[in-house]
Amino acid sequence: MTYCVGLKLNAGLVLLSDTRTNAGLDNIAIYRKMFFFENPGERVIAIMTAGSLSVTQTTLARLHEAIDDEMADETTSILKAPTMLQVASMIGDCLARTRREISDQLRDLSQHQASASFIVAGQRAGGDMRMFLIYPEGNFIEATEDTPFLQIGEHKYGKPILDRVVTPATSLADAQKAVLLSMDSTLRSNLSVGMPLDLAIIEKDACAVSAKRRILDGDPDFARMSVEWSNALRDSFVKVSI
Amino acid sequence: MTYCVGLKLNAGLVLLSDTRTNAGLDNIAIYRKMFFFENPGERVIAIMTAGSLSVTQTTLARLHEAIDDEMADETTSILKAPTMLQVASMIGDCLARTRREISDQLRDLSQHQASASFIVAGQRAGGDMRMFLIYPEGNFIEATEDTPFLQIGEHKYGKPILDRVVTPATSLADAQKAVLLSMDSTLRSNLSVGMPLDLAIIEKDACAVSAKRRILDGDPDFARMSVEWSNALRDSFVKVSI
Repeated sequence: MTYCVGLKLNAGLVLLSDTRTNAGLDNIAIYRKMFFFENPGERVIAIMTAGSLSVTQTTLARLHEAIDDEMADETTSILKAPTMLQVASMIGDCLARTRREISDQLRDLSQHQASASFIVAGQRAGGDMRMFLIYPEGNFIEATEDTPFLQIGEHKYGKPILDRVVTPATSLADAQKAVLLSMDSTLRSNLSVGMPLDLAIIEKDACAVSAKRRILDGDPDFARMSVEWSNALRDSFVKVSI
Repeated sequence: MTYCVGLKLNAGLVLLSDTRTNAGLDNIAIYRKMFFFENPGERVIAIMTAGSLSVTQTTLARLHEAIDDEMADETTSILKAPTMLQVASMIGDCLARTRREISDQLRDLSQHQASASFIVAGQRAGGDMRMFLIYPEGNFIEATEDTPFLQIGEHKYGKPILDRVVTPATSLADAQKAVLLSMDSTLRSNLSVGMPLDLAIIEKDACAVSAKRRILDGDPDFARMSVEWSNALRDSFVKVSI
């Protein structure tokens, strides 16, 4: 499993992903699930991935290959596409094609279906910040004022805190706290979501990654925050009357 | 969907269920999902149900029919079975048989499978309180000291609060608060879980239902508790530092 969450706020984009990949409980590994395509000042595109590793890796590799192609143009390279909508559409097409091909290969031996979904967030100079959730079929939805966050993977445990505290006006500092607490609830409840974490901030109109941080297992700040939150929840529980 | 949760504590059993049944989002109805079989002072058995309504209703009806049968004996009536383990086993067999029959009927017209799961909790005079989660296949697991709660249906949204505050030593008052807050998180996030709620307490060694209460939509105490909890969570969020 996986948990990735992205917030689209007035002040910028805040992204958080875990790194655990598993093929059964007895075969776990660490793989990055957050990727950046950047031409600083002109555009920044972040992709977070959930699903079959063969699908997500092959899709990312194909996006890179298309960018590096000498013949790359605005219809093939996400670094040349004129709008974020077209970026999302190109990534969706690439994901859907890769997923279909791998599912066809799998059909030879098993009923297993390969699948994956992405969160794509970014901004082009002169355009708005946008954030999309791309489904395995290649279609997508977009974060809005009413629903300023998108999640992929194990989304349920970490949703109540986002529902309660995140609005488009949330500050970037509070937003980091919100996604980390959302991840903390998920880590506690689903073993297939695991440390380390990748956190990134893309400030509005920077058109570049403003900050990124890998949070390792045992990170003292994350551990302290997790304990403070547990204690605060228990205190709140005591205070509420029935 | 459904959300039912049961706690097995040193002081007694605490049970909470919602009442929403749906066949698609455009067809919702209220059906009780908590049932009691009682011979006060001698035994009490509570059943909570999740899954296809035709399976849960038919299983319950068959359990009643077996009790009312003049020839009922300790192998056919859950009010005569000598232990809670045998009660769980009889209910599991009845559930599995009913589910198989209905799935066979459905196969005529669709690929749809009927399924259901139960929480069975209770006590016989001279025996211990016990609580089981019965799977659609009829097998079951039991609540223990380490894991004193069981959930069926939409269990994810409401699990973090239980993980944090419930232990076997939790008082019955705190336990009621915990299951109601667990339900509150679930109601907010999953439309197919809905009011009214059924809450029941079975005190240790009472061998009878000690208290039951239907909490209607708009119940002022539940609404106030929900608001207090939201406010306490937001206050906690502000206090935690990153």
